[in-house]
Amino acid sequence: MELEIVRWLRDRLPASERVTVGPGDDAAVLDWSCGSPVLVACDTIVEGLDFTFDTSSPEQIGHKALAINLSDLAAMAATPVCATVSLVLPEGDPLGLCQRLIEGMLPLAQRYGVDLVGGDISIWGGPLVATVNLIGSQAPHGLWCRNGASAGDAILLTGELGGSILGHHLDFEPRVRESLQLAAEYQIKSAIDISDGLTLDLHRLASENGLRAILDLQSIPISAAAFKLASGPAARLTALEHALHDGEDFELLLAVDASEATRIVSDPGIGVQITAIGILSEGSGVWSRNSAGLLEPLKPVGYIHGSA
Amino acid sequence: MELEIVRWLRDRLPASERVTVGPGDDAAVLDWSCGSPVLVACDTIVEGLDFTFDTSSPEQIGHKALAINLSDLAAMAATPVCATVSLVLPEGDPLGLCQRLIEGMLPLAQRYGVDLVGGDISIWGGPLVATVNLIGSQAPHGLWCRNGASAGDAILLTGELGGSILGHHLDFEPRVRESLQLAAEYQIKSAIDISDGLTLDLHRLASENGLRAILDLQSIPISAAAFKLASGPAARLTALEHALHDGEDFELLLAVDASEATRIVSDPGIGVQITAIGILSEGSGVWSRNSAGLLEPLKPVGYIHGSA
Repeated sequence: MELEIVRWLRDRLPASERVTVGPGDDAAVLDWSCGSPVLVACDTIVEGLDFTFDTSSPEQIGHKALAINLSDLAAMAATPVCATVSLVLPEGDPLGLCQRLIEGMLPLAQRYGVDLVGGDISIWGGPLVATVNLIGSQAPHGLWCRNGASAGDAILLTGELGGSILGHHLDFEPRVRESLQLAAEYQIKSAIDISDGLTLDLHRLASENGLRAILDLQSIPISAAAFKLASGPAARLTALEHALHDGEDFELLLAVDASEATRIVSDPGIGVQITAIGILSEGSGVWSRNSAGLLEPLKPVGYIHGSA
Repeated sequence: MELEIVRWLRDRLPASERVTVGPGDDAAVLDWSCGSPVLVACDTIVEGLDFTFDTSSPEQIGHKALAINLSDLAAMAATPVCATVSLVLPEGDPLGLCQRLIEGMLPLAQRYGVDLVGGDISIWGGPLVATVNLIGSQAPHGLWCRNGASAGDAILLTGELGGSILGHHLDFEPRVRESLQLAAEYQIKSAIDISDGLTLDLHRLASENGLRAILDLQSIPISAAAFKLASGPAARLTALEHALHDGEDFELLLAVDASEATRIVSDPGIGVQITAIGILSEGSGVWSRNSAGLLEPLKPVGYIHGSA
C-alpha cells in the first residue's frame, strides 16, 4: 500500500527545473547556484488539536498544512521554493486520504511556485499527523526578522482578526504575495505572523526588540467571524476579545517608521487592507490604550498549539 | 508547557556560523553562498511502528530519527548541514521526553556537523511521532544517484545484514563518513541505503537502472543478530533469510565497475568492511546464485514501513 502511495505521489509531483534529482532518490536535490541564503520552516498539524475530520475536509487539511509554513516564510518576506510532506495516515483508506491531502496542497503550491519534492508516509491505527517542511530563498530586498524595530515605530496589521475557528484557520491565504510586495516597496523593520493570537505574537515581537507594544483597541479590525462568535447565547468573550486573543488568523504584524506607516496604509496597490493598530515604545509588555487614552496592561494570552 | 520546551530547545541549539538567523524567527536562515545544490531528506518515525518505549529509550529514538535521515544523505554521498525536528509528544512529561530525544540526537549531530536549526512541537494524548528534515550540500566530488549503473557492474555492500530488530535499528551508525570517503577516492556509479531489506532495496536499485541483480548467496555478510534470531526454538527463517529480507540495517549498496570493486574491497583505509555480493546484468529482477551456480528468482520482500 505504501509503495502505491509513493508511486502516486511521484506521478503527481510537478516537474521543476530547479529540482535536478527527483523523489525517486533518497533526497531531493535543488539547484542553488543563486547562492542566496536558504530558509527552512517546519510545522506539523495534528488531528484533534489543529483540525478534526468532523469540521474539515482532507483538502482543507492539506491546504492548512502547507499554508501555515508559507505564512512563516511570508513573515520573513522570503520566496517559497519547495516543500517536503511527511504524512502519518490512519488506516482505512490511506491512499485516498493521501491523495485528497495533496490535492488540497497543489493549488497553493502552484500559486506560489512551491515544488513538492519528496516526503515520507507511514500508516498506523492512530490519527492523522501532517508535517510540512518548506524551503525558501532570500529575495533581492533582503529578509524581515523579528528584531530591528525602534521605539516610536507604528504597528501595522494585514487583514482582520478573530473567530478563525469558524473556518478561516482552514482556508486562509498566507500573505506571501503581500509580504514580497511590501518588502520590495517599503522599509519594514520587523515582522511576525499571528499564529497564536494578536496579544501573544505581539508580545513576542515587542520582547524580541526590548520594547513595549501599545494597542489602540478601537482601531483593531475585527472579523465578521469574531462578531458571530460573540453574538451567540453561550458567548463568553466579546468580538474584540476574540480579535485580541484567538489564534490562527495568520495575518502579519509589521513594525515600521511612523512616516512609512502613513504611506503604506494609504497605498491602494496592496491587495489587502493594512491598518495601523498601535505603536512600540520604551518599556515592555503589551498594553492597550482605550478611546480615552487610558493605558492598561494586556495579558498575552493566546492559543498555544498543543498546550495541555 | 510548549513555550518552555521551545525555550529549552533554543538554549540547547548549538551555535553555528552557517545559521544567520536563529530559531527565534519564523524560519532558520542558512548561509549558502557556496552555491552548491541543496539536498532535502525527510523521514518520520512513529511509536508502535518504528519503535516502542518497551524496547527503546528516548535517547535511542532520537538517535534513530536523525540517523535514518543521515543515512539517506550518505546514500547520495552528500554532506549533512542542518536539520529541523518536529515532535508530536504524548502527554505526561513532554518536556522531559523532548529533552531526552534531543539528547539522543546531539552526539550524532555533533559527529557529523549537523546544526539543529528549528522545528515544531505539539502535545497530544496519542503516541510519539518524530519527523526530521535534513538539509545537506553537495560535496566537491558530486552526488551519487540510484541510476548510473551498467551491466557487468559489481554490487558492493557495507557492513553486515540481518536481525536489526534486536537493537541495531536503534543504534546503527549512518555511513556518512564512509560514503564521503568512497566518493572522494573511487568512482561509484549508483547507490542506495538499505532501509527496507536487501532484496527490496536492491530491486529498487536494479529496476532504476533497467538491470537485473544477481546475488551470490554465500558471499552475503550475515550479522550475529541474524544468527541469533535464526537459532531460537521459534525461529521461522534462516540467518541468510534474515540478512536478505530484514529491514533497517541502513548499510549502503553500491554499483561499481568490476575493477574498481577489486580495489575498494581490498582498501584497508575504509572504516567498514565492504563486500562484493553480486553483479548487475541485462534483464530485470533480483536473482540468487547458489554455490553450484544455479540462478533462481528472489522475491523482493522486505520491510515496508507502515504497510498494513
